[in-house]
Amino acid sequence: MAGNSFGKIFKLTTFGESHGVAIGGIIDGCPPGLQLDLDAIQNELNRRKPGQSEIVTQRKEPDTVEFLSGIFEGQTTGTPIGFVIKNTNQKSKDYSHIKDVYRPSHADYTYDKKYGVRDYRGGGRSSARETASRVVAGAIAKQFLSSIQIHAYTSSVGDLFLEKPYQDLDFSKIETNPVRCPDDAIAEQMIAKIKDIRKEGNTIGGTITCVLQNVPVGLGEPVFDKLHADLGKAMLSINAVKGFEYGSGFCGAKMKGTEHNDLFNADGTTQTNLSGGIQGGISNGMDIYFRVAFKPVATVIQKQDALDSSGNIVEMQGKGRHDPCVVPRAIPIVEAMAALVLADFYLLNKMYN
Amino acid sequence: MAGNSFGKIFKLTTFGESHGVAIGGIIDGCPPGLQLDLDAIQNELNRRKPGQSEIVTQRKEPDTVEFLSGIFEGQTTGTPIGFVIKNTNQKSKDYSHIKDVYRPSHADYTYDKKYGVRDYRGGGRSSARETASRVVAGAIAKQFLSSIQIHAYTSSVGDLFLEKPYQDLDFSKIETNPVRCPDDAIAEQMIAKIKDIRKEGNTIGGTITCVLQNVPVGLGEPVFDKLHADLGKAMLSINAVKGFEYGSGFCGAKMKGTEHNDLFNADGTTQTNLSGGIQGGISNGMDIYFRVAFKPVATVIQKQDALDSSGNIVEMQGKGRHDPCVVPRAIPIVEAMAALVLADFYLLNKMYN
Amino acid sequence: MAGNSFGKIFKLTTFGESHGVAIGGIIDGCPPGLQLDLDAIQNELNRRKPGQSEIVTQRKEPDTVEFLSGIFEGQTTGTPIGFVIKNTNQKSKDYSHIKDVYRPSHADYTYDKKYGVRDYRGGGRSSARETASRVVAGAIAKQFLSSIQIHAYTSSVGDLFLEKPYQDLDFSKIETNPVRCPDDAIAEQMIAKIKDIRKEGNTIGGTITCVLQNVPVGLGEPVFDKLHADLGKAMLSINAVKGFEYGSGFCGAKMKGTEHNDLFNADGTTQTNLSGGIQGGISNGMDIYFRVAFKPVATVIQKQDALDSSGNIVEMQGKGRHDPCVVPRAIPIVEAMAALVLADFYLLNKMYN
Amino acid sequence: MAGNSFGKIFKLTTFGESHGVAIGGIIDGCPPGLQLDLDAIQNELNRRKPGQSEIVTQRKEPDTVEFLSGIFEGQTTGTPIGFVIKNTNQKSKDYSHIKDVYRPSHADYTYDKKYGVRDYRGGGRSSARETASRVVAGAIAKQFLSSIQIHAYTSSVGDLFLEKPYQDLDFSKIETNPVRCPDDAIAEQMIAKIKDIRKEGNTIGGTITCVLQNVPVGLGEPVFDKLHADLGKAMLSINAVKGFEYGSGFCGAKMKGTEHNDLFNADGTTQTNLSGGIQGGISNGMDIYFRVAFKPVATVIQKQDALDSSGNIVEMQGKGRHDPCVVPRAIPIVEAMAALVLADFYLLNKMYN
Repeated sequence: MAGNSFGKIFKLTTFGESHGVAIGGIIDGCPPGLQLDLDAIQNELNRRKPGQSEIVTQRKEPDTVEFLSGIFEGQTTGTPIGFVIKNTNQKSKDYSHIKDVYRPSHADYTYDKKYGVRDYRGGGRSSARETASRVVAGAIAKQFLSSIQIHAYTSSVGDLFLEKPYQDLDFSKIETNPVRCPDDAIAEQMIAKIKDIRKEGNTIGGTITCVLQNVPVGLGEPVFDKLHADLGKAMLSINAVKGFEYGSGFCGAKMKGTEHNDLFNADGTTQTNLSGGIQGGISNGMDIYFRVAFKPVATVIQKQDALDSSGNIVEMQGKGRHDPCVVPRAIPIVEAMAALVLADFYLLNKMYN
Repeated sequence: MAGNSFGKIFKLTTFGESHGVAIGGIIDGCPPGLQLDLDAIQNELNRRKPGQSEIVTQRKEPDTVEFLSGIFEGQTTGTPIGFVIKNTNQKSKDYSHIKDVYRPSHADYTYDKKYGVRDYRGGGRSSARETASRVVAGAIAKQFLSSIQIHAYTSSVGDLFLEKPYQDLDFSKIETNPVRCPDDAIAEQMIAKIKDIRKEGNTIGGTITCVLQNVPVGLGEPVFDKLHADLGKAMLSINAVKGFEYGSGFCGAKMKGTEHNDLFNADGTTQTNLSGGIQGGISNGMDIYFRVAFKPVATVIQKQDALDSSGNIVEMQGKGRHDPCVVPRAIPIVEAMAALVLADFYLLNKMYN
Repeated sequence: MAGNSFGKIFKLTTFGESHGVAIGGIIDGCPPGLQLDLDAIQNELNRRKPGQSEIVTQRKEPDTVEFLSGIFEGQTTGTPIGFVIKNTNQKSKDYSHIKDVYRPSHADYTYDKKYGVRDYRGGGRSSARETASRVVAGAIAKQFLSSIQIHAYTSSVGDLFLEKPYQDLDFSKIETNPVRCPDDAIAEQMIAKIKDIRKEGNTIGGTITCVLQNVPVGLGEPVFDKLHADLGKAMLSINAVKGFEYGSGFCGAKMKGTEHNDLFNADGTTQTNLSGGIQGGISNGMDIYFRVAFKPVATVIQKQDALDSSGNIVEMQGKGRHDPCVVPRAIPIVEAMAALVLADFYLLNKMYN
Repeated sequence: MAGNSFGKIFKLTTFGESHGVAIGGIIDGCPPGLQLDLDAIQNELNRRKPGQSEIVTQRKEPDTVEFLSGIFEGQTTGTPIGFVIKNTNQKSKDYSHIKDVYRPSHADYTYDKKYGVRDYRGGGRSSARETASRVVAGAIAKQFLSSIQIHAYTSSVGDLFLEKPYQDLDFSKIETNPVRCPDDAIAEQMIAKIKDIRKEGNTIGGTITCVLQNVPVGLGEPVFDKLHADLGKAMLSINAVKGFEYGSGFCGAKMKGTEHNDLFNADGTTQTNLSGGIQGGISNGMDIYFRVAFKPVATVIQKQDALDSSGNIVEMQGKGRHDPCVVPRAIPIVEAMAALVLADFYLLNKMYN
């Protein structure tokens, strides 16, 4: 139990099922005196919300955040920030067809076995809708960490890869196309691919690369709470994530020490950055970058066998409006989780000075 | 601060620098009444210790664990288990040559910047020597979880890959060769490669695959403490790890939903297992498997440029007895951390029944 | 920061200021499958709410709890229970007269010095209004712990003491009078005293005694999380509490060992119970009882000197509708916090079996 | 389980049974760069150790602390400080007479019922010997908080009370007599009383008053982690403690608001200090003072009935060298726990600046 909190100091606890009254959360530990830009917070939610472009789910949910506490005259007060996002489409649909059915590669079966009871409407707690609360908290963390730049972008869709290293990309192009890939040509191909996938009632996986720039030296708390270990946990806690690598990642496992070592410059920066901005679990001031793998969404608009709770294999026709590829909408979630990790370590680090 | 504990219920806190008096730890939350096999614990330490074969560092450290509390007449009592492992070679060497030098791709620089002071002897707290304490705790967790099988093995060294899926391997062969790869032919090549690498004074990366079998359904605490999120954090907290993937992992990001979905059998098992035994962050009873990427060890026995604390680039000659490839000795560490994660969730899960 | 959570397993996090949009909280770790009696929860809130009798504040607040998640078809699902209580009188009053004034023996000064900013309306976060969220969570904990009886009552108001030991009292009389003292004669005196105090525009302190019956043997986690240590912290975290004692308490400090020792009966019960149902921090199956001291409410309806934020002593006329004695309304809060402590330890204890 | 840690940032975890190999602990989160006075730490242990005067137990234990990590060249390094205190008399005595016997008002019965197994030698984990580890950690916390003065003293033994308020006492006299009461006349009476009690093979309770001076404004984390709530928990976690009150305490519950309110001076100090230096759970810069009640030690050197594990009442003759009154030796423990609480909040507070 009690797995619904993230962070030690800048701490988010979330609640809510996809088809309950509302989702929301409490941010405990946000420093006082932070002048909040509420529009910027809503804007992050808008980047995540359904129906924003033709390559994501066409569901319409306004996803408007309401703050209930912790903010006074536009400033944080140091007390917990409570917020809710109402579920506007909570009664719009009949879910009785999945009431007793475990869909393949969903969490229906495991939730039922673990808890003995579940809110079966639209995934309930296991729905990625919960991540909207993370985006709210992450947006506040971003404002707290205004000197740090956090940029995530789509680096692959299926077998279409953006091969360029992040240094050769213009991050300002990320938001210029619906797939959030900062290379026009590849973005176009990705969009076409996602449209094709949707037409066949299928879904496709992809990866997101995230770059954290201007991170101060010293963030991370070895030995267990290494900066990359907490970033990894944060990313792996996002729905559909199957893998995480930072710096040289899995490629680094093929390399020799002499190839992999990042030699220093006299100012403490390094000539290369295969380390990915972290040494021994502590940021070294260089860019931090990592890559996150997302599986294809499990809901396909095709007939598939499922299991019912009586132990019968039953045919199920996927329906509804689902994402053909989760990656474009997951970009703000990846950024939000990165911001939460950084905020936590940033505050912890203040205790050394 | 306070990053030296792992787990919530079955909780390990470690202490110790590589060249201090001793390393050790406290296990708090081990259930009472567990009859401990102390030889089996020491045996796990022996699998990790230096000097055990010709492809690992030739340092000699006995790494003998002494228990100080929490065990009475051979049984755990439910009180904290304190233990120490003495550092026998703590004064054997002169470390003054690295006192004011930051070695490339080590934690010297970041520790100094974060803490303002560091025990520079042999890496101090950032040394992988700390993981011996994890192996002790993991060995106890394994005994607590005796019905679960945990097997890790070397799945690649540099560009030499064991391509066979784990289902086609005989885990009883893992300990029959020093590289801990359960395929004789590949193992031989890996060993030869590591010997070559050592001869050139270099190091090489690799990957470890770990398989958890007979895990009960229901482990994992969404939404943040998903089983794979905590496994990922556990692995990423091990020295030199750069990446983690489970189930289909990064390959899954290239797939379509119809390819990736694991269809059910009537008994709740699945026909395929791209999910890797976890749905929605909760174990589903199928095998859990994951892969961990290790970078090459940063210490090479060659001349390299380093940075001194006054801001000068200085030439440094790597020396001493270091691992040419960290993977064979990291096998028991990966298993230990997996056992700690499982023990924690196993105990938490008892609260539902 | 991050001091707004209570409990490890059955964990409550609260948010909200007295005059913000709403207060509320998240209960994380409530076991699934608990059929909730929502009326019983609201009833506990009603016991705490203002305006319920002539000896408490005459403010009118409906204090209606709305649940947003974690409950499906009347049952808990094991997912976090989010709830809100709207602040209906949030804009009803002008607080500009205390905007820059620190009232004596309030938290105005310390909040301002700590956070640099505060919601000055009616105490903001430091208002006892926050305890309504605790009552909601405690009411759920009580239902989870239905076999345990929790009874709190007023044992003193000013220098009027209910001297009878709890064994001689009829707990069913607690709710029969507004001061919640289960002795008619003393209750009448207490009520008269509180009325007098109110007439003079003053306030008065008092004590609450709480008895926990049918607590299973084995609750409490030494050495730091002793059952009485967590009960003590729980009580001391309630607004206006100045002291806590359990069993023989401060009187026990005057006694000799031969007087104080509780001799056993053959069935493991004890002949006396000066220990208060706890030995070595673990419940022993006997009744647990403790006493909590509340100071007089700081807001008096008289002229008093206060300090303004510019460092001037200014005269302030207390006004508004405040409690002349906090004790009657604090009874359900004491019970709620006791229930939260017990629920936490009860769940932890399941791990031993 | 897992109740053996105290603190969030400056965090102590202890291990060890009274008659095991050793007791000890890990301090995680002590800031780096603190030059430690090791003699001062040992001196605190000496204040707690047995055999130091004629009014405490005459057992001889050297209680020498050995540090294993986290200190380099005399300074803390920010890494965990591991330490042990060897149990020198661990095999000196035969404990078979209490192997199957539950002594009255000891933790024998509850430990056995909770854990199903216990180290019965001399109390095992429930022995107050564990507090030696707290004294070590507290001594380091004191050095970290060198600008804060922490003074505890014996304020009553049985019905002998030191009635003078702390302001009228000379703290430098505390260590001048073995009962640690800073009033010569009362101290003499207390010593005589304890000697009498010992002669009759009995024990007696008492209280300790503790004063914290020069505490900065702003320590404490409402709403649950109020400064006095954590102080209360800290004190109640010490063996034999039955009650805690701060500021006006239980007396405050008899007072009126107009009597109890502390009016401000223009500089933010207050004219009176019934609040005890804390408002709303946050230190206000005035002296913090509290009182802790200790029951009489349960081991009396007389015949008493006990219960054996088969359910028989058996006569038991208390023997050995035990404290007739625990209070004089508990003084450094109270100070240590207060220092740990302050260190934690002090570090948390740095995040606001």
